[in-house]
Amino acid sequence: MLVVMKFGGSSVADLDKIRNVAERCIRKWKEGNRVVVVLSAMGKTTDRLLAQAGEISKMPSRREMDMLLATGEQVSVSLMAMTMIQMGVTAISLNAWQVPMYTNSTYQNAKLKRIDCERIRKELDSNKIVVVTGFQGVNKYDDITTLGRGGSDTTAVALAAALHADLCEIYTDVDGVYTADPRIVPNARKMPEVTYEEMLEFASLGAKVLHNRCVEMARRYNVKLVVKSSMCEAEGTVVKEKTKMEKMLISGVAGDKNIAKITVAGMKDDPESTFRLLNLLSSKGVNIDVMIQSLEKDGTKTLTFTVAKPDMIMIEELLKNEGEILGNVNIKCKEDVAKVSVVGAGVSSNPGVAAKMFEALSNAGINTNMVTTSEIRITAVIKEAELELAMRAVHDRFAAEWE
Amino acid sequence: MLVVMKFGGSSVADLDKIRNVAERCIRKWKEGNRVVVVLSAMGKTTDRLLAQAGEISKMPSRREMDMLLATGEQVSVSLMAMTMIQMGVTAISLNAWQVPMYTNSTYQNAKLKRIDCERIRKELDSNKIVVVTGFQGVNKYDDITTLGRGGSDTTAVALAAALHADLCEIYTDVDGVYTADPRIVPNARKMPEVTYEEMLEFASLGAKVLHNRCVEMARRYNVKLVVKSSMCEAEGTVVKEKTKMEKMLISGVAGDKNIAKITVAGMKDDPESTFRLLNLLSSKGVNIDVMIQSLEKDGTKTLTFTVAKPDMIMIEELLKNEGEILGNVNIKCKEDVAKVSVVGAGVSSNPGVAAKMFEALSNAGINTNMVTTSEIRITAVIKEAELELAMRAVHDRFAAEWE
Repeated sequence: MLVVMKFGGSSVADLDKIRNVAERCIRKWKEGNRVVVVLSAMGKTTDRLLAQAGEISKMPSRREMDMLLATGEQVSVSLMAMTMIQMGVTAISLNAWQVPMYTNSTYQNAKLKRIDCERIRKELDSNKIVVVTGFQGVNKYDDITTLGRGGSDTTAVALAAALHADLCEIYTDVDGVYTADPRIVPNARKMPEVTYEEMLEFASLGAKVLHNRCVEMARRYNVKLVVKSSMCEAEGTVVKEKTKMEKMLISGVAGDKNIAKITVAGMKDDPESTFRLLNLLSSKGVNIDVMIQSLEKDGTKTLTFTVAKPDMIMIEELLKNEGEILGNVNIKCKEDVAKVSVVGAGVSSNPGVAAKMFEALSNAGINTNMVTTSEIRITAVIKEAELELAMRAVHDRFAAEWE
Repeated sequence: MLVVMKFGGSSVADLDKIRNVAERCIRKWKEGNRVVVVLSAMGKTTDRLLAQAGEISKMPSRREMDMLLATGEQVSVSLMAMTMIQMGVTAISLNAWQVPMYTNSTYQNAKLKRIDCERIRKELDSNKIVVVTGFQGVNKYDDITTLGRGGSDTTAVALAAALHADLCEIYTDVDGVYTADPRIVPNARKMPEVTYEEMLEFASLGAKVLHNRCVEMARRYNVKLVVKSSMCEAEGTVVKEKTKMEKMLISGVAGDKNIAKITVAGMKDDPESTFRLLNLLSSKGVNIDVMIQSLEKDGTKTLTFTVAKPDMIMIEELLKNEGEILGNVNIKCKEDVAKVSVVGAGVSSNPGVAAKMFEALSNAGINTNMVTTSEIRITAVIKEAELELAMRAVHDRFAAEWE
């Protein structure tokens, strides 16, 4: 079996942790697998480098930032290969440019374009464990690029796809994907399997386990992903195309406090006014999330939508200053709101899901404010103070059926 | 003018020092020069990385060591380019593999084989300051190598040679090459010029200013070198083929305490016994330095030579254990010895030099023990305790004529 194993910065934060990871990889290799290891920079290295660059300039050259940041993973992979060799195993470290993993030239947020597998295959053929820098690439000018957020996970999935690996294991500080955040919902349980779609919804709903970008790539190339803990031997969560869990109504509950609600009342009731508002927002790069539109008795239109909390002030200013194109509107902002969502492949095929969710919220005395649904998700906007109560109530309503 | 400017680790040890170096390079560039900057790793970075590797293994993989160590210079050059760009100048950092600077595959002590100048020329043509990692190379497998001791100086001289630079400036923590170590000889003065040969003698006599390897390369490719301080604006010392100073009898005095004297008495008086002894020593990688041979009245031969002090014990053991091939010899070791040397292009053409040196030593009451000479050097072995007195006495004897 060819396995790509990816470890994040906290899993390689010091030499003891590097030794643990090395042992784990060597075990996999001794079981007869071909092993490619992808690493992030050690612990807080990237933060330290960012701080140094920040002292030089508020807007450091993006090309030079990538040159600087790339040293972080180069240190991790060389120390890891050294450790494995010291343990008596043949291993070799490779920078992204040595693979090479080509990207476009968008420094700090580059997109992978092409991976040349020849070098890695040659090293695997000579029975080596190959340790590759995550997060990095090289562009057509031979300059170093970095992949931005979720970069190392994306490197791992991309290598798994290019090498036609049987499995891509993402090791992290949690031991899998849970039906809800266990710190909030004590009854939360680990899911043995989720679909790519469910994982994407979880990621965009604020679960920090995997970045959307890596899940999307895994789905596109049908890479079998496993999320598991680097600290223990527990079975993780498998992310794949189809799961056996479709008989379950939902696969989990997610909560997100990082939203604000904006209400624009008194708009003219024509299609153009909505378009103008959305256009104004998108011109500033604002993503709007849940949105509802209602007609008032006086013939005006009210638009309500949620945005990321840090954007609220900027949007309020924008609408007040440029709002005249919308007519004589009245703008209200509210930041003590949150979203609670249920996610699962069974949502659209089981009309009972929404009923059960709102039954649970109502039993807990929680008012819902706005609601949206997708194929595999139902989201309600509620008061921020009630989010944890809501997550527990909704989770436990469905958990009762899992037993 | 095309100038290569090289700065060592202490000159770029923190962001303030990096700013100072950046200003200095920018000044040179604004004067209308094309500027290539070569940097070492910041301050103690290399030591810190070596210590980390040392915790993993007593004999870490040499390839992985080079992968690890190379991150040090990559950090310096990216921070430097970032600083220059922040100061409003176009600059770009390059790793050795991006130049590329090809070496053989002797990891940790690689030899430069070929430098491709196209990329650097292109960046210079677009009016950029080009900041290149010192100490590094890349081999034909696309693996990172490092050049070993004196590596960054060698990088600078090699780039100057390949680019046909008009000048290679080596910035260091002293402001030039002195006629003797100013900490020992208060009257020592800075030489405006020395020849490559003199600089080579100084380097091998323990002056730490430039590594032999870089001076040899400068001589071979006729690169004009200047040694100057990164801390002040003082004129440095020019190292070149011929100097105007040949009327001076000597260019300086050097002292070296790091030697021990070994006497092997009672050897058979035939050529083969000397050969056997030298063969035995060279088989263990021992470099012998000053050597004299004398015939005793009893028909045996005595060989006396100096070696590096740390090797003495090992050599004593070796000669005692394997000495039977030499006959019934008697071995004596002495470590309280030192060498005092005068260096200068005028030595061989001026028989008076030796006379003046021994006159000065004798006036100071210092016995000389063994003597050797080269074209441009006279070395005497004396008691270690008398070294500083000897250096001052010899230096001041010649200095009197410089006035």
